[in-house]
Amino acid sequence: MNTTTTEAVPLWRRAAAELLGAGLLVTVVVGSGIAASRLSPGDVGLQLLENSIATALGLTVLILIFQPVSGAHLNPVVTLADRALGARHGGGEIAVYAGAQIVGGIGGALLANLMFAVPAALSVTDRAAPGQVLGEVVATAGLILTIFALARTGRAALVAPAVGAYIGAAYWFTSSTSFANPAVTIGRIFTDTFAGIAPTSALWFLAAQVVGAVVGVGLVFLLFPNRKAQP
Amino acid sequence: MNTTTTEAVPLWRRAAAELLGAGLLVTVVVGSGIAASRLSPGDVGLQLLENSIATALGLTVLILIFQPVSGAHLNPVVTLADRALGARHGGGEIAVYAGAQIVGGIGGALLANLMFAVPAALSVTDRAAPGQVLGEVVATAGLILTIFALARTGRAALVAPAVGAYIGAAYWFTSSTSFANPAVTIGRIFTDTFAGIAPTSALWFLAAQVVGAVVGVGLVFLLFPNRKAQP
Amino acid sequence: MNTTTTEAVPLWRRAAAELLGAGLLVTVVVGSGIAASRLSPGDVGLQLLENSIATALGLTVLILIFQPVSGAHLNPVVTLADRALGARHGGGEIAVYAGAQIVGGIGGALLANLMFAVPAALSVTDRAAPGQVLGEVVATAGLILTIFALARTGRAALVAPAVGAYIGAAYWFTSSTSFANPAVTIGRIFTDTFAGIAPTSALWFLAAQVVGAVVGVGLVFLLFPNRKAQP
Amino acid sequence: MNTTTTEAVPLWRRAAAELLGAGLLVTVVVGSGIAASRLSPGDVGLQLLENSIATALGLTVLILIFQPVSGAHLNPVVTLADRALGARHGGGEIAVYAGAQIVGGIGGALLANLMFAVPAALSVTDRAAPGQVLGEVVATAGLILTIFALARTGRAALVAPAVGAYIGAAYWFTSSTSFANPAVTIGRIFTDTFAGIAPTSALWFLAAQVVGAVVGVGLVFLLFPNRKAQP
Repeated sequence: MNTTTTEAVPLWRRAAAELLGAGLLVTVVVGSGIAASRLSPGDVGLQLLENSIATALGLTVLILIFQPVSGAHLNPVVTLADRALGARHGGGEIAVYAGAQIVGGIGGALLANLMFAVPAALSVTDRAAPGQVLGEVVATAGLILTIFALARTGRAALVAPAVGAYIGAAYWFTSSTSFANPAVTIGRIFTDTFAGIAPTSALWFLAAQVVGAVVGVGLVFLLFPNRKAQP
Repeated sequence: MNTTTTEAVPLWRRAAAELLGAGLLVTVVVGSGIAASRLSPGDVGLQLLENSIATALGLTVLILIFQPVSGAHLNPVVTLADRALGARHGGGEIAVYAGAQIVGGIGGALLANLMFAVPAALSVTDRAAPGQVLGEVVATAGLILTIFALARTGRAALVAPAVGAYIGAAYWFTSSTSFANPAVTIGRIFTDTFAGIAPTSALWFLAAQVVGAVVGVGLVFLLFPNRKAQP
Repeated sequence: MNTTTTEAVPLWRRAAAELLGAGLLVTVVVGSGIAASRLSPGDVGLQLLENSIATALGLTVLILIFQPVSGAHLNPVVTLADRALGARHGGGEIAVYAGAQIVGGIGGALLANLMFAVPAALSVTDRAAPGQVLGEVVATAGLILTIFALARTGRAALVAPAVGAYIGAAYWFTSSTSFANPAVTIGRIFTDTFAGIAPTSALWFLAAQVVGAVVGVGLVFLLFPNRKAQP
Repeated sequence: MNTTTTEAVPLWRRAAAELLGAGLLVTVVVGSGIAASRLSPGDVGLQLLENSIATALGLTVLILIFQPVSGAHLNPVVTLADRALGARHGGGEIAVYAGAQIVGGIGGALLANLMFAVPAALSVTDRAAPGQVLGEVVATAGLILTIFALARTGRAALVAPAVGAYIGAAYWFTSSTSFANPAVTIGRIFTDTFAGIAPTSALWFLAAQVVGAVVGVGLVFLLFPNRKAQP
């Protein structure tokens, strides 16, 4: 979304923004998860409340920061959905965006591990129950709908707080705690802590996210058929 | 509210928006209630805090998404109050809106059940104490006043965060936890979980919501006698 | 504040707005306090968290609703500070505002009692430690500074979320939990629940609020010497 | 940031704003920390949740109040970064700002101690683990990036909520709980309570904050090379 304002920015700078933005997003998710699980050991719900509030606030800020540089996709399925909905990204540009997001996501998990003195290890947290996979479809479809409903009605300036609020809610109302982002999912493999996900579960989540993105794009076409330029 | 901007949208698309919006609202309410009660088993207040924060954030996002399509009523008494306060909805349009909201609400509860692997069953949660019924009158009157105070003073763009904040507060300050919405109330019959309501209690709530809507419309006429067009 | 836009509203309607607004504010404070103390009996901090979040959200909405009608003072020391800082309220108008706020505040407490089936009784909660009285001076000075810093710099539209956020913080950072409002203080005498205050403590709080308002007005004169009209 | 609008304000008034603003910020941090630790003795995470929500809300309000007067730096490394990024502050002005911020920060801690009847004493809380020092680098770099990403893209009006949200998240996702401010760090030496920091740890934090500010300024130059005037 919001590509009209970022077309003049060189690709290397946009890639740096996507790498840093997706990276810090994973740092926020993983770091706050570690802090929450250490400080509130007695109640998993309270841990998730702390984790979800920190994520909602941090994600809002990250989109505000990086939106004028790269559009602040921070998420490969957002980049793909943007293309499917009419943005003129070429294949190379999409690959650069996705690559930067994934590399950033892994780096962000390692930074959180380092700050909290957690040994680097792959997660063993299984998250592949059928209900969770369905939850991830719902989570991703809702994210795509949120972003492009706003972008197509001249309200791109509201994407940052709306996406933060959406993810803050989706941590709770979806059964998957709403990863909804392949770069974040891959990053979260690289930490064996509260927010981690085992590699085999991650594969299911990636598939669900693709399905969810397709559903989301379909809903956008259904409800917002006209692609407006940003005002 | 906000009907001037949605008049050009075909009715089928507006109905789809109301169905999807009311449905996802119930998914947010029921789903976050299930997650909260499972993850924080030791403290009902903490469960309600988690449920109310998720609902406030999710409801704000849903109104942002659907407002340009259908007005984002998501609530039969809002549709009726809109008519009473001067919007030119015909009887057929009102019936389509209310039907879509109710069908959506039931579907949203079933989706939450499915994600969290909860067997489909009607709720047995009794919520019909006299104080709770009074609470529901207060909750609905306040909701109607919030929406139309903003719509009548050229601030329809603030309806989304204001209604989200209002419901987040009303979960706590009313004794009914503020259903304030017949479609949501009917949907919540279809889940025997934290946010459910027994059918007999639902009848009391529906009656209280109608009374509350009348009180709310009266307050709007008293305090905001002039109906302004949206700027 | 914001008097230029409300001058054309008849005084009876402004009085109704102040009565209803201050009343519902006390309903929010007292009602959410009752719910929190019943649902989270094990941790007073969690109760205050629930109470403070509900109040921050509810107060924001109430100011949004009533600001175009009456200015949404909802607080006698705000009305007095507005006069001291240059608004052209006459003595009769000030008396009407303060009277409406106080009557509303008492009514709001009784409504909360009724919803939650609490017998009407005066509070016996003592809150008159010296530190608490100092806290109330700080709380009220900060509230006046918040409101008029915004009003004097053309940002009256931000008063609602800023005051909500301020009170949400001041519940915690002041030792008095920040009543900061004589009408609310008097109303909270009339409920023997979580948010109540014993009459003798209320006298100390009222005195502290007057001192705090004087300090706040002094800070506004010091930092914002020019009174700007609203844009 | 935002210096164009404050150039006409005399330096003494700007210094008063910085002193009062940084002071009240420390009062918010320390006061809410004392309240949280007293009211929620059983769970350190819940204490930090209460502390971080109060700080996020309070900091947002303080920046809103003081931004038109002094720019609302409230933080010596923000003042220095502003200079490094092109603002025309002279050395004397920088010294006045930093001095006012530090004096205010100490005074704010003492005010919190006084309200909560805490004896004045230096903190003995050690916070100098290597991970915490790295956390403080990350926290400060992120803060500088947040502020100047917005200021350089014509969105200075969003600095207040964005910085509040950022700090609210960074309390959790950094291992240091994100002091990110030398004036606040020095102030927090002067309270032996939840938010305190031992003097020797403070030295490490101050060094980390300078490093973090340098990193942050570097990121701003990389991602936002053009310095725009505020619209």
